[in-house]
Amino acid sequence: MIEGTAFLELLERQRAGWTLEQPFYLDEDIFAFERDRWMSRQWMLMAHIAELPAKGSHIVRDLFNESIVIARAGDDDVRAYFNVCTHRGSRLCKADGRAPLLVCPYHAWSFKLTGELQSRADVPDGIDPADLGLHPVSVHLVEGLIFCALPSDALPDPAPAFDVLGPALRQHGIKRARIAARKSYPTNANWKLVLENAFECYHCRNAHPEYTNVNGHVQVTGMRDAAKAETWADEIAHWQKTITGADGFDMKHRDPGSLDRLSYSVTRHPIGRGRATLSRDGAPVSKLMGAFADYDGGETQFRFGRLSFASAANDHVTLVQIQPRSAQQTDMVLTWLVDADADPALDVEPIQWMWDVTTVQDKRIIEDNAAGIRSRAYRPGPYTALEGETATFVQSYRAEMHALVCDDAGVGG
Amino acid sequence: MIEGTAFLELLERQRAGWTLEQPFYLDEDIFAFERDRWMSRQWMLMAHIAELPAKGSHIVRDLFNESIVIARAGDDDVRAYFNVCTHRGSRLCKADGRAPLLVCPYHAWSFKLTGELQSRADVPDGIDPADLGLHPVSVHLVEGLIFCALPSDALPDPAPAFDVLGPALRQHGIKRARIAARKSYPTNANWKLVLENAFECYHCRNAHPEYTNVNGHVQVTGMRDAAKAETWADEIAHWQKTITGADGFDMKHRDPGSLDRLSYSVTRHPIGRGRATLSRDGAPVSKLMGAFADYDGGETQFRFGRLSFASAANDHVTLVQIQPRSAQQTDMVLTWLVDADADPALDVEPIQWMWDVTTVQDKRIIEDNAAGIRSRAYRPGPYTALEGETATFVQSYRAEMHALVCDDAGVGG
Amino acid sequence: MIEGTAFLELLERQRAGWTLEQPFYLDEDIFAFERDRWMSRQWMLMAHIAELPAKGSHIVRDLFNESIVIARAGDDDVRAYFNVCTHRGSRLCKADGRAPLLVCPYHAWSFKLTGELQSRADVPDGIDPADLGLHPVSVHLVEGLIFCALPSDALPDPAPAFDVLGPALRQHGIKRARIAARKSYPTNANWKLVLENAFECYHCRNAHPEYTNVNGHVQVTGMRDAAKAETWADEIAHWQKTITGADGFDMKHRDPGSLDRLSYSVTRHPIGRGRATLSRDGAPVSKLMGAFADYDGGETQFRFGRLSFASAANDHVTLVQIQPRSAQQTDMVLTWLVDADADPALDVEPIQWMWDVTTVQDKRIIEDNAAGIRSRAYRPGPYTALEGETATFVQSYRAEMHALVCDDAGVGG
Repeated sequence: MIEGTAFLELLERQRAGWTLEQPFYLDEDIFAFERDRWMSRQWMLMAHIAELPAKGSHIVRDLFNESIVIARAGDDDVRAYFNVCTHRGSRLCKADGRAPLLVCPYHAWSFKLTGELQSRADVPDGIDPADLGLHPVSVHLVEGLIFCALPSDALPDPAPAFDVLGPALRQHGIKRARIAARKSYPTNANWKLVLENAFECYHCRNAHPEYTNVNGHVQVTGMRDAAKAETWADEIAHWQKTITGADGFDMKHRDPGSLDRLSYSVTRHPIGRGRATLSRDGAPVSKLMGAFADYDGGETQFRFGRLSFASAANDHVTLVQIQPRSAQQTDMVLTWLVDADADPALDVEPIQWMWDVTTVQDKRIIEDNAAGIRSRAYRPGPYTALEGETATFVQSYRAEMHALVCDDAGVGG
Repeated sequence: MIEGTAFLELLERQRAGWTLEQPFYLDEDIFAFERDRWMSRQWMLMAHIAELPAKGSHIVRDLFNESIVIARAGDDDVRAYFNVCTHRGSRLCKADGRAPLLVCPYHAWSFKLTGELQSRADVPDGIDPADLGLHPVSVHLVEGLIFCALPSDALPDPAPAFDVLGPALRQHGIKRARIAARKSYPTNANWKLVLENAFECYHCRNAHPEYTNVNGHVQVTGMRDAAKAETWADEIAHWQKTITGADGFDMKHRDPGSLDRLSYSVTRHPIGRGRATLSRDGAPVSKLMGAFADYDGGETQFRFGRLSFASAANDHVTLVQIQPRSAQQTDMVLTWLVDADADPALDVEPIQWMWDVTTVQDKRIIEDNAAGIRSRAYRPGPYTALEGETATFVQSYRAEMHALVCDDAGVGG
Repeated sequence: MIEGTAFLELLERQRAGWTLEQPFYLDEDIFAFERDRWMSRQWMLMAHIAELPAKGSHIVRDLFNESIVIARAGDDDVRAYFNVCTHRGSRLCKADGRAPLLVCPYHAWSFKLTGELQSRADVPDGIDPADLGLHPVSVHLVEGLIFCALPSDALPDPAPAFDVLGPALRQHGIKRARIAARKSYPTNANWKLVLENAFECYHCRNAHPEYTNVNGHVQVTGMRDAAKAETWADEIAHWQKTITGADGFDMKHRDPGSLDRLSYSVTRHPIGRGRATLSRDGAPVSKLMGAFADYDGGETQFRFGRLSFASAANDHVTLVQIQPRSAQQTDMVLTWLVDADADPALDVEPIQWMWDVTTVQDKRIIEDNAAGIRSRAYRPGPYTALEGETATFVQSYRAEMHALVCDDAGVGG
């Protein structure tokens, strides 16, 4: 673990508006601190309820490098456990499945879906079987989305945030979706570089020709051009008038959050240029979802906490998880949702296309960024006006780290 | 190296009858301590004399991550050396072979089979060639088995143990065997997890259906069932009466050993259910070995020190080496012996079958155990009544580590 | 970083005339010290001007584990930069190419060939774009050879050495050569083991039969045999008489160098046995280079600093770079040059043959040397009379390290 005083010095030396000092992107000790003190306060989007179709359904997933088992114990009762048997410590589940009990493959110890040890005959005398239940992981189920967090006293209550986000999630019909596809993009870079990239579109014109072609907003998020900005403002204003019907909504909420309060945002804008959805040519790619009776050509962007995102078009939704693995490894995982009643023979390629091609490009540019930062010549550089959200994220990160380090040191955070 | 006081605290915190605390299974510093202080006192079964058929035969093997050369210098004269030239430090031997001298491939320095430098012409003036002999490794040759140990003043004398084990080794004709097959099972787990698994059969019913089908003893070692225990006791009693002839023997010896005394055991029981040998259907798979004039259907299990084992049926023998590689890597190496006069065209698959299928399964369950133990949720769990030998091993390990740490600290061990 | 006192003790314990203690070949902390304090004073041969044929040509290479961009900014103006954008730290160039500006693939920031930031429109107010130029790497261009060094106040001036070496480089026509082939030999060994091997031919007879067959000097550098030494002395004397024409030269210069003065050498001898060049049968393999009007059968060996070498025959030149990667990894990179006007369809295999076959063998023997040194049994061994240059190199290394450690400790070096 990095020594407190040195870490504090590094945090205080950091200039606002500039990229982070090198150790924040490379150092395994700083990553260990982040994992133990910061990630333990983060809720992560882990699964969709469609992955647990019935009581006894269970899935094996990774949360902050911990293997966890998420199990459906009842209709609205989803539980999660560390994937560790309490007898000798073996992995309990090797694969997704369905069973009335969770049975360890080593010595056949079995556990109820609610975590209690079921097979008590071999427990030595003097040991209370009640002490041998599975180790729980925190779960929050909302509108079909399953969020998990490592157990911690300092975990923020997610309910207030989802009270705000609920209407937008319901509008998009996320609860009654099914999973169309999932793809993982392992990326050799620190998780903060992945987020820094996600929070700005300054790189879009240069690095994402397909994305730039689809999305009207790049005219203001990807460049500074007064004429184009005016055109885009006109297009938004026109669009906002067209969506004030029963099926549309015009929402913008944001809470910067803190260590103790879930950070989130939801914003909505037209895709633009007459496009109905986020496809190659703008034409529909699946059945309309949720409360949409017709295409309005909007995209709703959600952020849940610091590491989970969604992009919702009228007929499909893309969930994004940013999973830190180590100081220099991060997984980006994308999951595409469509309506439960969408054609089972649906071609998923057009649904995946935009975010897949963009994420493949992002992986490359993020890895190039990480490679450059490993150089002894790397120095923090200045964020430009088009990288404001990135600078804000880095500033929040710095403030939260500072509070955690001071907290450790017994200094008022 | 782990700091003495912290290690002592960890050892003293450990509860008897429970699995070890996490660091004992993961920590490279603890492994380094084990390697330097504990493994240096262990004899390891390294080879069979059939691998060195003539004077000048030499083989290259790994002992505790050290490459060593074992060479036959005479009829009963087996020597072993670190595989390091004393000139520039190059590897001396790259492969098994036979030659009158050991010649370094770098600058052609040559050494006698007894270790002395042969080529002295280039040795600079003022340096005594006698100081440039090969670095010896300790060797103990007994009944055709070659045991090696890293040089250490604290190495226990193996002779007393082998005085006890000798009759059983001779009965099984191990000295005049030949090697039928060898297979390595690299396992991503701490060596103690491999031994903990080897010392109990509680997992057999669940994890080893083939082994359970072959071996009658699983009725008492793999479950607690009074009726089955009685049946098995009857079968043993009946079998013991049948083997009091010239060819059978009924032996049970065990020395728990210590840091200074070789731990060993030999036990013997019927395979059961009318089986002649450890094959799929119980039918013979090779020529009878040693003093056996007829099949008696028994299996003799040997343990030599802490890391070497043998399972001897009437017509073949399986040697087992447990080779620690790092804190989280261990090799299990199995060698199958048959009588020297067994048919050269013998099909070895039926001979390997039982231990091969069982060891493949063991590798998997041990690796699952290791994976679970890496979790932050892992806590020591209780050993049951069917894991008594495993608990005993862990207790011995703890006592020996405690003595070594106290020894280092100058505290009475 | 290794603690100064411990390092000093290790250096002072080292016996002259014996191989280094184990940590010098294995320890990553010592390598880190070497990299930060010693390699930062070394010039490394990086490229030939033929790789940068025109203004705007740029190439991406590795110097001491740093990716650098070498660019031709004008006729005799070669620049080098760390391959790091000053905006967010991304890799600037991914591949060799030619362009009027160096443009970052992330956000399209562009830089002049002379390093200044070109695209200044997005630089935030209050930040001077002049502070955002590329980070320079030192370059020395001489006779078409491009040497680079990491920026350091303590870098020795290469000019005096090249004043001496210039005539020999010109005689061999190195400036107007083109690259015939390049090959990298990644070697799992410390860089000093690679150099120790390069500085002696004691191993040649045993390890390099092809090299020994070609090169007459092995009669004295690879063995101690009075009769052969006399024959070889006669052959040299005879050869020296034949080359006193306009096209030949007879040069021998050497400066042991120091931390502050470039170490170099140039020596010249006949290949011997009537051979015209360093080919399988001694027959020419390309067009004569430089000032040679006819074959004189000589080889000129150059050493530039500690890590770069060249072997020049009459019709081709082999450049050698020794690139340390980590404590136990080194790349040997060989580049074969021929005259710019040599037949474009030239078969390069006969040109590469001798040094390729020899370097493949060297990689193997050096890796075997490194493997043996990893053993706990490794002890320093004595260099023989045929390893004098190796002993000298090790002695220089020890003296330079000693000076650097004392310098750090504030003790007079």
